[in-house]
Amino acid sequence: MTTAQLVSQIKQKKSFLCIGLDVDLDKIPEHLLVLEDPIFEFNRAIIDATHHLCVAYKPNTAFYEAYGIKGWQALKKTIQYLNKNYPEVFTIADAKRGDIGNTSTMYAKAFFTDLAFDSITVAPYMGKDSVEPFLAFKDKHTIMLALTSNEGAFDFQTLTVPKQELYKEVLQVSKSWKNSDNLMYVVGATKAEYFKEIRKIVPESFLLVPGVGAQGGNLQDVCKYGLSKNIGLLINSSRGIIYASKEKDFATIAALKAQELQSQMKMLLKDFI
Amino acid sequence: MTTAQLVSQIKQKKSFLCIGLDVDLDKIPEHLLVLEDPIFEFNRAIIDATHHLCVAYKPNTAFYEAYGIKGWQALKKTIQYLNKNYPEVFTIADAKRGDIGNTSTMYAKAFFTDLAFDSITVAPYMGKDSVEPFLAFKDKHTIMLALTSNEGAFDFQTLTVPKQELYKEVLQVSKSWKNSDNLMYVVGATKAEYFKEIRKIVPESFLLVPGVGAQGGNLQDVCKYGLSKNIGLLINSSRGIIYASKEKDFATIAALKAQELQSQMKMLLKDFI
Repeated sequence: MTTAQLVSQIKQKKSFLCIGLDVDLDKIPEHLLVLEDPIFEFNRAIIDATHHLCVAYKPNTAFYEAYGIKGWQALKKTIQYLNKNYPEVFTIADAKRGDIGNTSTMYAKAFFTDLAFDSITVAPYMGKDSVEPFLAFKDKHTIMLALTSNEGAFDFQTLTVPKQELYKEVLQVSKSWKNSDNLMYVVGATKAEYFKEIRKIVPESFLLVPGVGAQGGNLQDVCKYGLSKNIGLLINSSRGIIYASKEKDFATIAALKAQELQSQMKMLLKDFI
Repeated sequence: MTTAQLVSQIKQKKSFLCIGLDVDLDKIPEHLLVLEDPIFEFNRAIIDATHHLCVAYKPNTAFYEAYGIKGWQALKKTIQYLNKNYPEVFTIADAKRGDIGNTSTMYAKAFFTDLAFDSITVAPYMGKDSVEPFLAFKDKHTIMLALTSNEGAFDFQTLTVPKQELYKEVLQVSKSWKNSDNLMYVVGATKAEYFKEIRKIVPESFLLVPGVGAQGGNLQDVCKYGLSKNIGLLINSSRGIIYASKEKDFATIAALKAQELQSQMKMLLKDFI
């Protein structure tokens, strides 16, 4: 998917909501557990109920890998279902990968070719040649960790390297990498005040923003500093939407929660659309 | 596996060799491709031929994920085969994972519980609360990226944060994390001169060292500065061993290549055992 297609979808749906599909068998409604593939059935119901309210889905690979081969099968069925039924939706493999060149190429094949995701999250620690293999794929997007939403973000990301804080250096340096047009960045919503600084370095790039909802981030603050002329934001909510109810109405309640966020986004987008 | 058991195995085998199982269907002998699970059959032959020469095997998850569910099945069969037939061997899931707390817990379950690996490689960028969930598992080891063997290592890892270079800060800070006894570190062999500095910060920790062989690192140099009183090194070689021959004798030739390294290690260990 091209960036232009993503922006067009955002304007049409008046939403830049991304729904995280972090499926935990201990948290999904019990009546699904008797089915052959409860993870996929849960995802399908959530997707069918919310696809008109969001522009992206983000399965977190950890939650699938934890169930071994069955989990991997559920991940594959989920992405196939999305690509077949809702090809306009942007898909993110939240995998936080990154390794030396030939290994990153294998990860890129796994997620871009075999699973056919539109994008993947990657970690920057190993530098340019660990990320460029992902960037080589046309119309695929690589979402690099910049400033994350957890407490540990302050362990290293905000340390000052000679010129500036490490996360700023990560943003700055990555702009010079080959095919850097395919880069997006993860920026945690719990640090809205940082968005102003980040927009000075990457004024146009899309930012994937976790941490609204369960982790306490505020949508208005993020938008105040984070929106670009191309919108440039994907706001993720996982637990706040998909686990809002554990009853048979879980998909309907998930849609209501998604609707709440989408309504706020519609207001915030009124100057952009 | 405890660290003491690992050290005991090293002393018994006079080897601290780790063999990387980075299986690429384009690189394995053609006669295996007609079998039902060529990846597993390749691994089994390599393992059977080399297990007495090395103390660890390190499947790189990217190479399995690239083949989707079949790849994941081959990974599972490989670790099960290792745990059943060679339980004394240390197993490393080279997965470079790391995410917010609840997600890291899922990754830890995937690799420590479901797949039953002894250890996993993780990335430090997201800090303490992204690594501690791995450290919570008793007798499991978490191998954190410190200074990697690729060109991109110089993009961020060697930048100076106020007091010292980032990779040193990563080493230093991680020592204060809960259950840090379960930490090991990835240190690239292509930068042998750094080992002296690293040993000042982590004098006893085990270091997993990729980059000997195909990536040009030198075993003698690494040992000169890297060996600790507990040996404290696992030297990985992947392509240099497993792809030494593409013929029917591939496992025998792999064993010869492993034997070459093990012989050098035996010499280098003579003052330690």
